[in-house]
Amino acid sequence: MNEQLFSHFYFYGDLLGTAVFAVSGALAAAEKRMDILAFCLFGVLTAIGGGTARDLILNRDAVFWVADDIHLHIALASAVMTYFFAHSLSSISKPLVWMDAVGLSIFCVQGSAVALTLGASPTVAVVMGMMTATFGSIIRDTILDRPAVLLGPEIYVSAALVGSTTYVIMAEYDAINTLALLTGTAAAFTLRAAAIIFGLQLPKFKGISGYKRGR
Amino acid sequence: MNEQLFSHFYFYGDLLGTAVFAVSGALAAAEKRMDILAFCLFGVLTAIGGGTARDLILNRDAVFWVADDIHLHIALASAVMTYFFAHSLSSISKPLVWMDAVGLSIFCVQGSAVALTLGASPTVAVVMGMMTATFGSIIRDTILDRPAVLLGPEIYVSAALVGSTTYVIMAEYDAINTLALLTGTAAAFTLRAAAIIFGLQLPKFKGISGYKRGR
Amino acid sequence: MNEQLFSHFYFYGDLLGTAVFAVSGALAAAEKRMDILAFCLFGVLTAIGGGTARDLILNRDAVFWVADDIHLHIALASAVMTYFFAHSLSSISKPLVWMDAVGLSIFCVQGSAVALTLGASPTVAVVMGMMTATFGSIIRDTILDRPAVLLGPEIYVSAALVGSTTYVIMAEYDAINTLALLTGTAAAFTLRAAAIIFGLQLPKFKGISGYKRGR
Repeated sequence: MNEQLFSHFYFYGDLLGTAVFAVSGALAAAEKRMDILAFCLFGVLTAIGGGTARDLILNRDAVFWVADDIHLHIALASAVMTYFFAHSLSSISKPLVWMDAVGLSIFCVQGSAVALTLGASPTVAVVMGMMTATFGSIIRDTILDRPAVLLGPEIYVSAALVGSTTYVIMAEYDAINTLALLTGTAAAFTLRAAAIIFGLQLPKFKGISGYKRGR
Repeated sequence: MNEQLFSHFYFYGDLLGTAVFAVSGALAAAEKRMDILAFCLFGVLTAIGGGTARDLILNRDAVFWVADDIHLHIALASAVMTYFFAHSLSSISKPLVWMDAVGLSIFCVQGSAVALTLGASPTVAVVMGMMTATFGSIIRDTILDRPAVLLGPEIYVSAALVGSTTYVIMAEYDAINTLALLTGTAAAFTLRAAAIIFGLQLPKFKGISGYKRGR
Repeated sequence: MNEQLFSHFYFYGDLLGTAVFAVSGALAAAEKRMDILAFCLFGVLTAIGGGTARDLILNRDAVFWVADDIHLHIALASAVMTYFFAHSLSSISKPLVWMDAVGLSIFCVQGSAVALTLGASPTVAVVMGMMTATFGSIIRDTILDRPAVLLGPEIYVSAALVGSTTYVIMAEYDAINTLALLTGTAAAFTLRAAAIIFGLQLPKFKGISGYKRGR
């Protein structure tokens, strides 16, 4: 793929991911029948929460949406549109799941790329990739007092792990960056797609009875 | 209003807001019959949580209460006093609501002012103002596992939005800073006061049934 | 105690604390019968969450586990081992409580030491010490939607308070650093040990009925 075409693809994929994550955050507010400001709050939190945590922990010069507020505008616009058009959204819930998979796949690889650029170790870069893709949703569900969807049975966080790990390994072995980004994104998307189609799950902890609750 | 008088008013209003927010945080611990340390934890979290999140995201040189710990001392003192005098506080719950409205009005405008000073865009500055005024309470309610009061029906976050937006617009059009601060504060306070007196609410999302839970 | 011996003791005590905190985090995931990634998430969050919040608020050049990822590796390894050996862990829940007390005692003093080194005021340093020792567990319980264990009746946060305060007072009066660290750690450990053995509790707020919920 041509380098410039790729960077366009990546740029728009990133914005698409932001929009879809914001819609999913706003839909969580819809479930609780909140007002439009809550739609915005949870839309923004879900869309940019993960990248914000990443940038803070990596001590980046500026959090990405403070440096350039296009992501903030997209997240806000998506949340507002969700408020007015949520009825129609219900009929496109299937496409939304797939757009979300695109967002997930791009966010995890991108998070790891940012981390490596800032000099983080491979392990830290993988963790940052997963955090970028998943932290916003986890915070949203925590504030809304519902069980974290991402920690549910279906494979989601694992797809981020696979995408980030693939990218970081390739980058460590000096693969061309475009190729590493593309392969990592494809790996995450493939696993997530398989999970959506076949309902893949990781094995749960079988459990033990009788140990005391930890501290 | 005389410039120096104003900055005194603002300084003490800020401290008053800190104290009242800390009392409201400690009262949440009182509801759950916790010990004095939990009073301090939730008092401090509510009073300085919003400003802390703002300073971290804006990458400020030092978080405000690390640079000068007067806010921390006031929050701790307020929480401890709440522990010992909560019985009397119940009889002043009405004045507390109004002092809280003062705190809200000052915090949102101040948060936006800090953001603009640090070079943030107008949209980011408005978000930072709202975050300064509301984030501490949201975290407190999340940790205490109770529905976020601020996300309830009554207008609260909206007042912060109006205050921040008013200030940011005036600042963008080069209004005298004192005037912009004062107008923003007054706008937020007026809306919040109307909400308290008349029980104003934003319309809730009417709801749809049947869409699947988002990711 | 010989200076070099001491720093070894401190270094390994710190890693032991990290491992035990990670085990306690992973056990929380075990209770909810989650998958191995959730074990890792909650193990890491519990073990390094407090120190991360401290480093962010103090605006440290690099968060400790980004600068050197040994803590991250230990936390991940502990979480994975918990997944496979949680059955056996149930039979060592008693030793775990004591190792956790060691971790608590070292983390609180260490957190305050980091804060003073970075120029924080005594009050801020005490708060940072308590945060280092307790914040990870509080976030874990919040995300898992269970009542925060640390805010339960038994003395835990208080032990961190006593340890941090002892250290900070001695450091302010120019005590030899090794001695201050050791005394603070011993103070925290003694109080926590007494709490474990005798079930010590702080008095709860007796409660009032009839005040309105705060904002």
